[in-house]
Amino acid sequence: MRKDKGSSHSKNLVKKIKLTSGSKFSDMPFPLNSKSIDNIIHKNDIDLNLISIRELQSLVSELSDNFSVEFLRFEFGIPGLKANSIGPQEEIKVLKENGALPSTYPPFDGIPRLKKATVEFVHQFLDIHVSPTNCIPTVGAMHGCFISQAIAGRRKEVSDTILFIDPGFPVNKLQTQFLGLKNISIDLCDYRREDLGEKLEEIFSAGKIGGLLWSSPNNPTWTCLTEAELEMIGKLLTKYDVIGIEDSAYFGMDFRYDYGKPGQPPFQPTIAKYTENYFIIISSSKIFSYPGQRISVTISSETLMTRKYPYLKKYFNSKTIRRAFIHGGIYPTTAGVPITPQHALAAFFETACTGEFDFLDSLKIYKVKAIKAKKIFLKNGFTLAYPDDSGKPLGDGFYFTIQRGDLTSGELLYIMLQFGIAGIPLDITGSKRKGVRICISLIQEDKFEELDKRIKALDKYLTSLKK
Amino acid sequence: MRKDKGSSHSKNLVKKIKLTSGSKFSDMPFPLNSKSIDNIIHKNDIDLNLISIRELQSLVSELSDNFSVEFLRFEFGIPGLKANSIGPQEEIKVLKENGALPSTYPPFDGIPRLKKATVEFVHQFLDIHVSPTNCIPTVGAMHGCFISQAIAGRRKEVSDTILFIDPGFPVNKLQTQFLGLKNISIDLCDYRREDLGEKLEEIFSAGKIGGLLWSSPNNPTWTCLTEAELEMIGKLLTKYDVIGIEDSAYFGMDFRYDYGKPGQPPFQPTIAKYTENYFIIISSSKIFSYPGQRISVTISSETLMTRKYPYLKKYFNSKTIRRAFIHGGIYPTTAGVPITPQHALAAFFETACTGEFDFLDSLKIYKVKAIKAKKIFLKNGFTLAYPDDSGKPLGDGFYFTIQRGDLTSGELLYIMLQFGIAGIPLDITGSKRKGVRICISLIQEDKFEELDKRIKALDKYLTSLKK
Repeated sequence: MRKDKGSSHSKNLVKKIKLTSGSKFSDMPFPLNSKSIDNIIHKNDIDLNLISIRELQSLVSELSDNFSVEFLRFEFGIPGLKANSIGPQEEIKVLKENGALPSTYPPFDGIPRLKKATVEFVHQFLDIHVSPTNCIPTVGAMHGCFISQAIAGRRKEVSDTILFIDPGFPVNKLQTQFLGLKNISIDLCDYRREDLGEKLEEIFSAGKIGGLLWSSPNNPTWTCLTEAELEMIGKLLTKYDVIGIEDSAYFGMDFRYDYGKPGQPPFQPTIAKYTENYFIIISSSKIFSYPGQRISVTISSETLMTRKYPYLKKYFNSKTIRRAFIHGGIYPTTAGVPITPQHALAAFFETACTGEFDFLDSLKIYKVKAIKAKKIFLKNGFTLAYPDDSGKPLGDGFYFTIQRGDLTSGELLYIMLQFGIAGIPLDITGSKRKGVRICISLIQEDKFEELDKRIKALDKYLTSLKK
Repeated sequence: MRKDKGSSHSKNLVKKIKLTSGSKFSDMPFPLNSKSIDNIIHKNDIDLNLISIRELQSLVSELSDNFSVEFLRFEFGIPGLKANSIGPQEEIKVLKENGALPSTYPPFDGIPRLKKATVEFVHQFLDIHVSPTNCIPTVGAMHGCFISQAIAGRRKEVSDTILFIDPGFPVNKLQTQFLGLKNISIDLCDYRREDLGEKLEEIFSAGKIGGLLWSSPNNPTWTCLTEAELEMIGKLLTKYDVIGIEDSAYFGMDFRYDYGKPGQPPFQPTIAKYTENYFIIISSSKIFSYPGQRISVTISSETLMTRKYPYLKKYFNSKTIRRAFIHGGIYPTTAGVPITPQHALAAFFETACTGEFDFLDSLKIYKVKAIKAKKIFLKNGFTLAYPDDSGKPLGDGFYFTIQRGDLTSGELLYIMLQFGIAGIPLDITGSKRKGVRICISLIQEDKFEELDKRIKALDKYLTSLKK
């Protein structure tokens, strides 16, 4: 994510929009002095187009200290809510009632209670039927995606490539890299409806793809795959024996529909309706605001889990997918998942199923914040980088994407940093479009006025430079 | 761990020692009917020489049900003690006092409290000085060994082999396999003192070894590397740029010495005294009887952690070991370690350092049990498979190894199963010697009489067959 020769953003920017530093707007300290910003960027050897989320986090902290300015931080994709007490209370309860619990190894395939609760949760909210045997807890969705990719890309020697529906979460590709697999990607917004099917078939038919990974709602665009698209994908996964890896990080958070009533339609769309070739990864991080305890589940079908591939044996010491996943995947990476977080997730699932805990209701604040923030950007000369959801209005949720004229992602980020605002450059998400991802989870209600002021000033500044 | 054509143990055994089934000894149900055992072994497609620990666990449960006999189980390498309440109490405390804790992602490199506590713990008990930056929590020692092997074996394209000092924990080799690395091993008992140094130098000098992995005390033989041997190994690690991976699963548990006084010699011997090229992995599973929450730390030196290898970038997106370990290793596998277990381990370390918690004292029961169990086996015709610790009497601790005449590991295990006793065959530990590993952690005080009866009966049975 770094490049060899310092940053050239301000230089490019100078050529393009006659950047001047030190202009004053009302009593605001913005824009921040560009020379100081340049120095800090240069010192850290950062390329703003390719900066990683964690590098950006450090950079923003350093800028914030340097200028004594509080930044409005839209770069983190982390929950801004406190977890419902159901989870912590459950962990406390099991630790109190059974002090011997931490003295036993967790079963590698998960505690029976969580496996059973997962079956019920996906029955109530995805309208699918799976076996507890095929519901496997992992140390966060990262762990689930890691093992799922490993299995998908190591079944057949020739099918060692993971295809990503981009833009997406950059770290999934770091997993592919760790595993020594190859990756290619297509940009979802170039291929919707029939085009998506045609493109996937073209790629799948070459035989090199072991797995297809996506998230819907999508990070960062918040577009969602339709039932028709999932049906097409499902058929192709079956036809070409590719495994679909459905990263349900934002399960049910397409707030255009009410997916929150257990056992009642509409149900969150899922690939499991259209193929047996799937791993679905459900994370507690966003939907239960529980990332700290790293607890998720991976769900699959009996058909896939009992399938045998001789090549799997090379890496997992077993030909059968289920055994390879558990004894060749979970065992050598973490030897199971911490026990009390498994009880917490089980309790979240159980109370969601009875209706006692309306987990999606508590997340609707994200929608409210997205609407407000989007409005501020749009009325001040910004546009959405991905404005369309296959002909439908885009939903409002955790993320949206912005762009500004013909500025590159790095240039836009640079200007935003000058006005005390951070977001991540779309380039690192695999997007071909220029722009910045805005995550609204952390911004508090009382900061929207400040956002409005800064974005207005930024707009005025850019407009004045163009004259 | 399976083979294609059922079990042939009883057949081999019949040839060798004229096995008969159904003989009776006093009122005991032993030996169990060999035909029924054969059927169950055959049905499960098991090879007793190569059976994995988990397969053995299932087999013993099935035999136990089938014959309505309670087995004496020496096959698990799991703690038989209840964790000190320090750990669970700490987790409860942080969950109660800070309900928002699970709502934030853990730092990828660990919570500052645990990093600091680790520095102090290794200072007090290993007499070494490290930086908190280089103390990195992992999801159990398995996770630490996994990433350590990945780093060690991916620094240079040619050095893609992990050398194991065997016998050892079989799953470490499953990790090598998952990572697509190669492994070779030497049997410690063939090479002690100068011989060990000569053998290592011979292998290291070919340039193919990226990492050397061992555990001391050793699983399963309970032999321990001496300071002189560690010094030799350390020099060779430095000379040939190999990373030593010291799996301290049984930290301080060589009860021939009192390693339990903070800040006072003798100190648990460690490779860190003799090279900067090390990862030390300290697990909470055995020393704090805390495997359920999967929490450990990996410790390294500033010299190693800041070293750069261009080839690392291919897999970890970074050339520098520390960044590769954290951002290229921890991040894509689990995105950090669950937070409350980190507090539990910190509390264990902190109280051990103040002397408030004498963690080794509570483990000395393992020594008592080992002495008793060993005595029973030895007085009934068994010998130790690894009786010698470089000229010194072997210590008594978690494991020891037994053999019986010229029986193979599988044959001995088969006979033991007939008498309701389970242990793991040495073959799966990489040992060249025949025999069975006995782990004494789970046997309760009131079962020694029964053990004595069964072993006596087994001895009588085997002796009668030879006549």
